[in-house]
Amino acid sequence: MAVALALSETVRGTTSPNPPVGAVVLDAEGNVAGQGATQPPGGPHAEVMALREAGERARGGTAFVTLEPCSHHGRTPPCTGALLAAGVTTVRYAVADPHPLGGGGADVLRAAGVDVEGGLLAAEVASGPLRAWLHFVRTGRPHVTWKYAATLDGRVAAADRTSRWISGPVSRAEVHAIRSAADAIVVGTGTVRADDAWLTVRDADGVLAPRQPLRVVVGTGGIPEGARVLDDSAETLLARTREPDEVLTALAERGVVDVLLEGGPTLAGAFVRAGRVDRILAYVAPMLLGAGPAALGPSGVSTITEAHRWRVEGVTMSGDDVRVAAVPLTGEGGS
Amino acid sequence: MAVALALSETVRGTTSPNPPVGAVVLDAEGNVAGQGATQPPGGPHAEVMALREAGERARGGTAFVTLEPCSHHGRTPPCTGALLAAGVTTVRYAVADPHPLGGGGADVLRAAGVDVEGGLLAAEVASGPLRAWLHFVRTGRPHVTWKYAATLDGRVAAADRTSRWISGPVSRAEVHAIRSAADAIVVGTGTVRADDAWLTVRDADGVLAPRQPLRVVVGTGGIPEGARVLDDSAETLLARTREPDEVLTALAERGVVDVLLEGGPTLAGAFVRAGRVDRILAYVAPMLLGAGPAALGPSGVSTITEAHRWRVEGVTMSGDDVRVAAVPLTGEGGS
Ligand SMILES: NC(=O)c1ccc[n+]([C@@H]2O[C@H](COP(=O)([O-])OP(=O)(O)OC[C@H]3O[C@@H](n4cnc5c(N)ncnc54)[C@H](OP(=O)(O)O)[C@@H]3O)[C@@H](O)[C@H]2O)c1
Ligand SMILES: NC(=O)c1ccc[n+]([C@@H]2O[C@H](COP(=O)([O-])OP(=O)(O)OC[C@H]3O[C@@H](n4cnc5c(N)ncnc54)[C@H](OP(=O)(O)O)[C@@H]3O)[C@@H](O)[C@H]2O)c1
Repeated sequence: MAVALALSETVRGTTSPNPPVGAVVLDAEGNVAGQGATQPPGGPHAEVMALREAGERARGGTAFVTLEPCSHHGRTPPCTGALLAAGVTTVRYAVADPHPLGGGGADVLRAAGVDVEGGLLAAEVASGPLRAWLHFVRTGRPHVTWKYAATLDGRVAAADRTSRWISGPVSRAEVHAIRSAADAIVVGTGTVRADDAWLTVRDADGVLAPRQPLRVVVGTGGIPEGARVLDDSAETLLARTREPDEVLTALAERGVVDVLLEGGPTLAGAFVRAGRVDRILAYVAPMLLGAGPAALGPSGVSTITEAHRWRVEGVTMSGDDVRVAAVPLTGEGGS
Repeated sequence: MAVALALSETVRGTTSPNPPVGAVVLDAEGNVAGQGATQPPGGPHAEVMALREAGERARGGTAFVTLEPCSHHGRTPPCTGALLAAGVTTVRYAVADPHPLGGGGADVLRAAGVDVEGGLLAAEVASGPLRAWLHFVRTGRPHVTWKYAATLDGRVAAADRTSRWISGPVSRAEVHAIRSAADAIVVGTGTVRADDAWLTVRDADGVLAPRQPLRVVVGTGGIPEGARVLDDSAETLLARTREPDEVLTALAERGVVDVLLEGGPTLAGAFVRAGRVDRILAYVAPMLLGAGPAALGPSGVSTITEAHRWRVEGVTMSGDDVRVAAVPLTGEGGS
């Protein structure tokens, strides 16, 4: 299952609105016969990819899948049928399918005599590659990760609005990896005006990745004509609103499941206030400024007891920076 | 030596201007014969305490000491003499004595035929219990740890200036332990005016510890007559200046070696600007405010390239909070 999980990680950012799933098929002797991961929308699911590679060796074998195999006809035939046709006799999956149409695959397989068990590495998969998709299925809204780089004193730019570079090279490389797994990168018009942010995925040499997430600029005021975010290195959506939910609805309609919010303090404040930040990724650089904008702007809190409360999910070093991941303390949405 | 280090930890905050040292004496068979730690100024040093407990069993034995034994007559006779008189034949110490008067103890012992070796756990001792004292001996200035509790967005109070409680109970208990190891707690008049801060060491039930660090209030403007910091639960110094170095000089004259700066953003900004913060202890609570004062006020930085740079020494969880310890990136003083 760990291999299936790793396979699913490789296709993050390419499968939405479908979930990034990984699958491994073992032959009857327990040797790896096939591996696969979800292909872009309309393409085969992970199980089918792994079964294709396994061919006849799947007969009497075992399939490990990070998500319960689907049992419905969508754009592709159900995976339960493919597993049965291939003669797989044992199926292990991580996370149960919460999808109203896709659920029930385990029962279908069991009814056909397959030995089925779920729950293997379920927590890792649910909080990892399938996190955004599970949130999307549950709420109908894309999952929003607010990422920012701040100093120890919580500033995201100096007094003169310069912010290059607060976080170090390791953190910046990590952010490009995170961008590449997202469906959309969202900022406010203020960030485009201040930084002429490009919002593309680049490698260490600055070369653009073949697949680029959708770039989204939120705000009513417009941005300069020559802004880099308007170039043709990736698609760009200008969301002429200040309402987080309007932005998220428009993105959901485009099949966006996983959003990386990289906006400045104003837009982040609006998302936090609306309860629309589902995860925080803070890169805290060991630097002090003593002036300049704080990471979060007005978010509806005037006294300490009204503070938005979170739970730290993990703290690690990212080069010389401290990386803090946090989730809302209770239920959905960060408030 | 680990035991000697632990012994020295128990007397932190009680020995200044002398160093908190720990000592263990083994008899000739290698069994523990005596343990000791530095007594308050004028009282015996650690070696003498351990030798007293060991008595005749010290003869032919080994002494482990966290600091090279002193060889000069101060307020107490030299420890080298006590070790020789007790018949100790082997001495192991952690950190060499950098003190112009106290140094050379190892040579004195060696000349008398004792087997002497230094450097055991030297890094642990030098960055732990002896850190402030070593800094004091090197620079003539007390060592300053700036401690603050901030939200993820870097605020130390909400828009209405409320700040109880940003950090959680575990962090607050830890701060009382850290206070108890300090010689003085320093704040600005603003913190007294805003919070009526008490600045005392209490246990979990709110009971005052028998020994209290000096309370220091910095600022020219004065504080309310009934301020809690003026009560008789501890001594209080009103430093009617805005100059960090004037404060530190006054404290050094009083034998203060280890300072805990708990001031608000204004005073912290002045200390950072002056290069007088030697360590940062940040308690970052998983909370968002979106308004309110940031951890650090003006510190002379107007653009990102002028930022004060630090090195993260350690990151740990403190209950639900993230605790970040940092030291100046290069040389002394945080800028
Ligand atoms: N270190 C980091 O991680 C990081 C990341 C991003 C930005 N920054 C820094 O942040 C600064 C820019 O901050 P910013 O706050 O101006 O950027 P922003 O939040 O990206 O953009 C703010 C703009 O978004 C629009 N907007 C959208 N929704 C809104 C709402 N609900 N309420 C109010 N306005 C809304 C408004 O413009 P309209 O008038 O067009 O509606 C507003 O002026 C720059 O200095 C930049 O360097 C730092
Ligand atoms: N969360 C935390 O860790 C924490 C800790 C402490 C305070 N706080 C919060 O911080 C807020 C108080 O902030 P603050 O900045 O007013 O507190 P502060 O820094 O403790 O005190 C500021 C005052 O100190 C004096 N001062 C001393 N040296 C100065 C200098 N070099 N330059 C300018 N003034 C100097 C000034 O008063 P004079 O006019 O008297 O000279 C100034 O008004 C409160 O909301 C409090 O809750 C939070």
